[in-house]
Amino acid sequence: MDTKKLPKMLYGGDYNPEQWEASVWPEDMRLLELAGMNIATVNVFSWAMLQPTEDSYDFGTLDRIMDMLAGNGIHACLATGTGAHPAWMARRYPDVLRTDFQGRARKFGGRHNSCPNSPTYRKYAERLADKLAERYRDHQALLLWHVSNEYGDQCFCDNCAAAFRVWLREKYGTLDKLNEQWNTGFWGHTFYDWEEIVPPNALSEQWTDTRTNFQGISLDYARFNSDGMLDCYKLERDAIRRHTPEVPITTNLMGTYKPLDYFKWAKEMDIVSWDNYPGMDTPVSFTAMTHDLMRGLKGGKPFLLMEQTPSQQNWQPYNTLKRPGVMRLWSYQAIAHGSDSVMFFQLRRSVGACEKYHGALIEHAGHEHTRVFRECAQLGEELGRFGAKLLGSRLPSRIAIMYDWENRWAIEFSSGPSVDLRYVDEIQRYYGALYEHGYQVDIVSFEDDLSPYGIVLAPVMYMVKPGMADRIERFVANGGKFVTTFFSGIVNENDIVTLGGYPGELRQLLGIWAEEIDALLPGRTNAIVMKDAYGELQGSYGCSLLCDLVHAETADVIAEYGDDFYRGMPAVTRNRFGRGEAWYIASCPEPAFLEGFLNELCRGEGIAPLPGKAPGVEVTRRELDGKSFLFVLNHNDQEAVIRLGEAAGTDLITGAAVSGTVELAGRDVLIVEQFA
Amino acid sequence: MDTKKLPKMLYGGDYNPEQWEASVWPEDMRLLELAGMNIATVNVFSWAMLQPTEDSYDFGTLDRIMDMLAGNGIHACLATGTGAHPAWMARRYPDVLRTDFQGRARKFGGRHNSCPNSPTYRKYAERLADKLAERYRDHQALLLWHVSNEYGDQCFCDNCAAAFRVWLREKYGTLDKLNEQWNTGFWGHTFYDWEEIVPPNALSEQWTDTRTNFQGISLDYARFNSDGMLDCYKLERDAIRRHTPEVPITTNLMGTYKPLDYFKWAKEMDIVSWDNYPGMDTPVSFTAMTHDLMRGLKGGKPFLLMEQTPSQQNWQPYNTLKRPGVMRLWSYQAIAHGSDSVMFFQLRRSVGACEKYHGALIEHAGHEHTRVFRECAQLGEELGRFGAKLLGSRLPSRIAIMYDWENRWAIEFSSGPSVDLRYVDEIQRYYGALYEHGYQVDIVSFEDDLSPYGIVLAPVMYMVKPGMADRIERFVANGGKFVTTFFSGIVNENDIVTLGGYPGELRQLLGIWAEEIDALLPGRTNAIVMKDAYGELQGSYGCSLLCDLVHAETADVIAEYGDDFYRGMPAVTRNRFGRGEAWYIASCPEPAFLEGFLNELCRGEGIAPLPGKAPGVEVTRRELDGKSFLFVLNHNDQEAVIRLGEAAGTDLITGAAVSGTVELAGRDVLIVEQFA
Amino acid sequence: MDTKKLPKMLYGGDYNPEQWEASVWPEDMRLLELAGMNIATVNVFSWAMLQPTEDSYDFGTLDRIMDMLAGNGIHACLATGTGAHPAWMARRYPDVLRTDFQGRARKFGGRHNSCPNSPTYRKYAERLADKLAERYRDHQALLLWHVSNEYGDQCFCDNCAAAFRVWLREKYGTLDKLNEQWNTGFWGHTFYDWEEIVPPNALSEQWTDTRTNFQGISLDYARFNSDGMLDCYKLERDAIRRHTPEVPITTNLMGTYKPLDYFKWAKEMDIVSWDNYPGMDTPVSFTAMTHDLMRGLKGGKPFLLMEQTPSQQNWQPYNTLKRPGVMRLWSYQAIAHGSDSVMFFQLRRSVGACEKYHGALIEHAGHEHTRVFRECAQLGEELGRFGAKLLGSRLPSRIAIMYDWENRWAIEFSSGPSVDLRYVDEIQRYYGALYEHGYQVDIVSFEDDLSPYGIVLAPVMYMVKPGMADRIERFVANGGKFVTTFFSGIVNENDIVTLGGYPGELRQLLGIWAEEIDALLPGRTNAIVMKDAYGELQGSYGCSLLCDLVHAETADVIAEYGDDFYRGMPAVTRNRFGRGEAWYIASCPEPAFLEGFLNELCRGEGIAPLPGKAPGVEVTRRELDGKSFLFVLNHNDQEAVIRLGEAAGTDLITGAAVSGTVELAGRDVLIVEQFA
Repeated sequence: MDTKKLPKMLYGGDYNPEQWEASVWPEDMRLLELAGMNIATVNVFSWAMLQPTEDSYDFGTLDRIMDMLAGNGIHACLATGTGAHPAWMARRYPDVLRTDFQGRARKFGGRHNSCPNSPTYRKYAERLADKLAERYRDHQALLLWHVSNEYGDQCFCDNCAAAFRVWLREKYGTLDKLNEQWNTGFWGHTFYDWEEIVPPNALSEQWTDTRTNFQGISLDYARFNSDGMLDCYKLERDAIRRHTPEVPITTNLMGTYKPLDYFKWAKEMDIVSWDNYPGMDTPVSFTAMTHDLMRGLKGGKPFLLMEQTPSQQNWQPYNTLKRPGVMRLWSYQAIAHGSDSVMFFQLRRSVGACEKYHGALIEHAGHEHTRVFRECAQLGEELGRFGAKLLGSRLPSRIAIMYDWENRWAIEFSSGPSVDLRYVDEIQRYYGALYEHGYQVDIVSFEDDLSPYGIVLAPVMYMVKPGMADRIERFVANGGKFVTTFFSGIVNENDIVTLGGYPGELRQLLGIWAEEIDALLPGRTNAIVMKDAYGELQGSYGCSLLCDLVHAETADVIAEYGDDFYRGMPAVTRNRFGRGEAWYIASCPEPAFLEGFLNELCRGEGIAPLPGKAPGVEVTRRELDGKSFLFVLNHNDQEAVIRLGEAAGTDLITGAAVSGTVELAGRDVLIVEQFA
Repeated sequence: MDTKKLPKMLYGGDYNPEQWEASVWPEDMRLLELAGMNIATVNVFSWAMLQPTEDSYDFGTLDRIMDMLAGNGIHACLATGTGAHPAWMARRYPDVLRTDFQGRARKFGGRHNSCPNSPTYRKYAERLADKLAERYRDHQALLLWHVSNEYGDQCFCDNCAAAFRVWLREKYGTLDKLNEQWNTGFWGHTFYDWEEIVPPNALSEQWTDTRTNFQGISLDYARFNSDGMLDCYKLERDAIRRHTPEVPITTNLMGTYKPLDYFKWAKEMDIVSWDNYPGMDTPVSFTAMTHDLMRGLKGGKPFLLMEQTPSQQNWQPYNTLKRPGVMRLWSYQAIAHGSDSVMFFQLRRSVGACEKYHGALIEHAGHEHTRVFRECAQLGEELGRFGAKLLGSRLPSRIAIMYDWENRWAIEFSSGPSVDLRYVDEIQRYYGALYEHGYQVDIVSFEDDLSPYGIVLAPVMYMVKPGMADRIERFVANGGKFVTTFFSGIVNENDIVTLGGYPGELRQLLGIWAEEIDALLPGRTNAIVMKDAYGELQGSYGCSLLCDLVHAETADVIAEYGDDFYRGMPAVTRNRFGRGEAWYIASCPEPAFLEGFLNELCRGEGIAPLPGKAPGVEVTRRELDGKSFLFVLNHNDQEAVIRLGEAAGTDLITGAAVSGTVELAGRDVLIVEQFA
Repeated sequence: MDTKKLPKMLYGGDYNPEQWEASVWPEDMRLLELAGMNIATVNVFSWAMLQPTEDSYDFGTLDRIMDMLAGNGIHACLATGTGAHPAWMARRYPDVLRTDFQGRARKFGGRHNSCPNSPTYRKYAERLADKLAERYRDHQALLLWHVSNEYGDQCFCDNCAAAFRVWLREKYGTLDKLNEQWNTGFWGHTFYDWEEIVPPNALSEQWTDTRTNFQGISLDYARFNSDGMLDCYKLERDAIRRHTPEVPITTNLMGTYKPLDYFKWAKEMDIVSWDNYPGMDTPVSFTAMTHDLMRGLKGGKPFLLMEQTPSQQNWQPYNTLKRPGVMRLWSYQAIAHGSDSVMFFQLRRSVGACEKYHGALIEHAGHEHTRVFRECAQLGEELGRFGAKLLGSRLPSRIAIMYDWENRWAIEFSSGPSVDLRYVDEIQRYYGALYEHGYQVDIVSFEDDLSPYGIVLAPVMYMVKPGMADRIERFVANGGKFVTTFFSGIVNENDIVTLGGYPGELRQLLGIWAEEIDALLPGRTNAIVMKDAYGELQGSYGCSLLCDLVHAETADVIAEYGDDFYRGMPAVTRNRFGRGEAWYIASCPEPAFLEGFLNELCRGEGIAPLPGKAPGVEVTRRELDGKSFLFVLNHNDQEAVIRLGEAAGTDLITGAAVSGTVELAGRDVLIVEQFA
């Protein structure tokens, strides 16, 4: 789907009128209009209402809700309602219930509660989607389909075990191949019959959710689980598409959520949408990175911010309020990174159950005279005024960071070298260094085309999948700059080590051999000592976590270790390869190093940062049809001085002309519209 | 039961001679007499001895024990022995075994091990109580019945599930009502058949013992569980009462133990008794509060201290000895707060099993030449000399703190706003401020008559049950002073939010609207800034945990917030209502604020602190028939100077006349007898 | 077995060629020879390969491996392969799977996965051992049998429950006896039928793995579990011995591993072997103690170091590399304490599964040009040159520390007095004080002959087994010096308290009565104040953890407590008994006290420390046939100055004459060969 086709910048959120007396509804409509809202996500948890018994369906209430929306000019993001199954179904067909990581058969309760391989669940979920699509295919309110809700978690039941064996047969063909790729000879776990394979959980191969005896089976189960849920999504999607081939279909993702391979999922979605719930201590640059990841799922196309809270959450340990201006600021942050919507969970706070203390447009007081409502209404006014201009615009970037779910799984299933090695932290470390200088970044998959980029970073590219090394070599040979780090090039797609010396398939490209990998205790550091200045970098920088003990083969040594018995061994190398360069950062450097290093690398590649960057200020640029929109977001509580340089234009929010040096209030936003 | 009818201040404790050779018994009798003891709790864990097979009972040993007690002038607190079931019963009837919170069917072991809804357990427990009462109804030793032991914990088995459904039908009548009050529409958990409901535990609605998806079902299960155990108590009690209508019946409670609603239990008990096991770091004011809570369970009647340790415990991480004098001091503390007994667990240390390192009158050395024995004997001498004078005396108070188990459950099941909000801490905060000034306090239930009091405090009155708001309004209208805090007036008895603006049903009384609730991270504070002096209060005080963002409607603003975006909003308000005042403390203040605030409030109400208060010194007063007994307890290790003021009289312990200024040794006690 | 019969100092390690293509094997042989290796442990995890179905066996690959070893002059340490069962067996016979402490029936996975009481496991494990022994009985490579692998953990299944009851019947004969020794009267757990007894785990008597309601049942289950696994070992051993009565049989132990009573195990083993995996923060003196414990298992006979890592481990949180020289240093440390081998896990790193990042002789690079390989080859050269001289030599000592697994279990199952009381820590505290002065120490069981020793230390001899008190009294009466501590002499072998006053059966020997036991909070201390100087000891020393409140009866008071209400009570006593002395250390002293105390005690007994001790330098001496070998190990990173005094001789490593003062490089080793 092309969001340029959206009628407007979507503004609204989750709305559950079926949980309320109908007498409340007109007041809801009044308040939504007052807040400038134009979309409501409905029917998210209505399965039990729509299908009160196995044989009967009742769409009466939903009909009334849809008609009300249409009557009030509100679009419907219509959910299929399969995010939690009805109680009667759990009682009659226990196969819909999951078996958890501990091996315990669950009982009715919660959400994320359906086994993805339950025949009952699949049958009735698909049927419900089909009936909904048939019924509302021509409804005026229908704008978007929202399949199920926040797919997630895992199941380890016998149905899953059986389906896993089928999945494995398809993948490996023979047990010999499986035994080889899982290296089952280790500990004599050789399988002679497919039926001997049981899911890896706390009762079999895993002793925690990330510690496993056999990475092969655990990796495959993670894939299988992601695929199984994706199959559930596809069943519903296909049922819907038969009725409404033109209406876009999405499901709400969850950023860096680990269990599901969202790059694979995004291929099956018309538009990416996601739920943004930063914690109290989440850096804004992490949120920025997550937005870029979500945008990257479909190659840079705009996405939808499906959920955020207007103010506090309820499930954090300490649920502080979003300070005045923060909701608006973070909403614009989403747009700045490619969102064509600002949507909330939730429009009206529930009176009971576990999310009743989660923020909402309409709080328990029930009226518009609240700080939260006023802030929402202000934003609604702004978006209504100029939001549509932004629809479909893209964020051009010549820098890419490679991200991969399977790589993450493999790294974090690894027993050794360090429990503190977390893939997302390493991605964020490189992203953050670019962010601090105002470089616009794309996050791409291991499979994406690299040719649009001048610089590609692949922190901890532990797993090298078939063909990847070739593709990266071609990218570099053609003049690209490639950067990877310690613990890269180690294994194939099944976590089998590439023998002959790390970094394995990347060794020729990088021109080094990593003989050993040292893990540093928390708080311990080594030093990266520059041999010569590289841009602003000179002297010594701290590093920690892991230190590869590297021998340069064809590479130039740019920096050496400063301490310990490997003092003097290479810490940073650059290998000229074809017309490009391949860099290896053998340890985990302090931010000052990365900022200096990446700045110089960009400079060398002719990539300039965006104008307007200042401390605590975030900048991005969206472009469309010859126009560009420079977003300047002041995350400081205090005023910031913004130097726009040549980026003069019109402030989209105020309509004022802006140029030169601008003072931007704390938590305020500037969107400079320019013509190319 | 009226403890004025007790023959003497009870002094003794748990005694298990059936675990020893009978040859030891005469020595026990000699030592009990030497220690001045007059009561022994027997038969606590004797079920397996009394009923060695399903069809046979053997009371021979118990007969001999009871006769021995009678022969030595020792009263029996006769337990029914159902605190742990026999091994044969668990094997033959697995329904007596519990299913735990994790959903695991337990095997034989431990205590607290019987399912309260097991037909087998109920049948045989009742039968045993019946047989004991029939047999010992006229026994000379029998003074008091002690049903089972420390009822507690929970079960989640299928029998409980079935009983829960019956309990729910009785409460709600219809599923529509239940669905409404649990707000099952949220996440589509609508029940269409009672059989679909399963107990809320780790396999269904709860993800920890305090985190739940649906507060409604979890609250009801907590009630159901408390009621089910109470039913077990009542079955035994009724069986006993048929035989001995005149003999009082109790069961030993455990202070602020969370799972059982002791106010409801106390209604079924003739006298409250409880087990006092402070930890190494429990403040003495917390113990004082707990005594007052136990006294409050039956409207201020004296209670029994059923258990305490003579010296160390065994199940703390670090089991330090009670220092010399501490056992005596804490024993008098119990009496000072309304106990008409001092009883120990245990009279003789066991030779094996998990409590063998728990303190006892008779330690493993087996003789009287120990520090612990000497201290017990000294106390026995004192109590024997004057203890009877205190029997039945009451503690007059014009200040009440409201306490409620259901309110606690609801607060702590809540998802948000802060995991650090613990009900008992907040109660203790207000209690402690009064304690530091020497005010005598009653702790009352949400249902108790408030008319005797001038001041009523209800910290975190989150749940407002039907009729409560009216009763409190009447109390204030008639001149009372009422104080409540942040996160009050939020929900009804089923945790359904009262819409229209917090504090809901208390809003008119308090004259405020609490728009938002901010949760502060640990270590973060805001400030309470007094607008004018209130008594000794002036300037600024720290506050933390939660900050309600309040609008005064009819209330006066007494103090404002000093920081953050809600600086200047009301932090403390007072609403004049009828002839009284209703106060709202919108955050959690530092102790200095509360001490100053409550002192001034009392002063304004004409309530004076007790004489004799000094730092580290605790004071209470008991009264009976025109006499009063002022207790002065020096918890310091060093001497304290006590100003008795007009409280001259006779020291009950030494017989000396005391008046004016008295020096009280470290850990010593003064009991001033006065005539009104 | 007498290791003097070994052909050479064994040098090699675990080798799993069946996990690799046979094309790799010749390279392995080349590299082993290059590294000077002479032994390979094979077949450790090959059950699934050897027995691919229930009815078929296939020894083809193992034949080729054994022949290859023989052809290359490499000895085989031939494992029986039963450390993990095949997947087909788990599927066909679920009785081989364990039930864990949580009561969960496990599924196929991991190792340590066979129920020791599974009839299937026992049958097929024994049969496999029998077939292997029959097949390879005359094979040239066969040097040593290695039964299963690292026996460990526990099972709680129904087969175990049934076997436990049989075990209990044999131990107790009657239920009356069992009820008495478990003190089941407590909480009324009396058993009337053996079938009522269930294993103690999280579903029955235990609430954590060290907290139990009944120490008696938990202790017996620990014994039963250790015995059950030992029975499995014996089944295989006996099957092997029928074929190869002359070939020694071992299984690899794990130091202070808690669940198995290795003193009992060692009686069934021809030679002790063990796996040494110190953590990052394990003190070298702890490793030294563990080596001495392993040597003590068979009364001082040399043992085998079966496994250590050449460099990093993989399962620690942070897997740092062994610094250059450390592997060699720690290898010599093993030899210095009695090892006649240096063996590694592993010779070649696996390509997949959880140990692929564990160090190996042949790393993933696959060749000899690595730091790790070079260090291994250097050590191989050295050991090949002179290692055989050391074979069979003993470590003479006149000091013994008593150690007992059952005592440890009992102490750590105890509920009270302190969770911080850990038996191994207390042993290490005394061991470490002797280590710091260079005293050579034996670690002996509670049953070993004490007559060779002048000084016997028994820290925390909580459990006094039948006859022990007599044996220790005889030792002291004959002139020995005996030292024990707080919390000693408390219980019998079933954790039943010895009544009449602590330290029970040791009371007459020690001449004291310990009236009470005080537990100190973490960070709290008391003081040990010397009454007179004792050697270098004078003044005051800190103590912590526990303080016994002691009365001297016949003992002399050497030091008193300096603080708290028991200030002035004895803290250290000495009782002259016959021709010897019995000491009691009533608390846990700081190291300075113990070092001074033990030094003076040794001096008084005429025991001299070994020459060459310096800070951070470890010394031991092995002797054989009139020759002695003084090991001097410099654990410092820097050079140390060694004063050999009269210990002049020849450095075994360099061949140089050494005497007087020697400078030893950081991490270097000196072995001084001397003639008596």
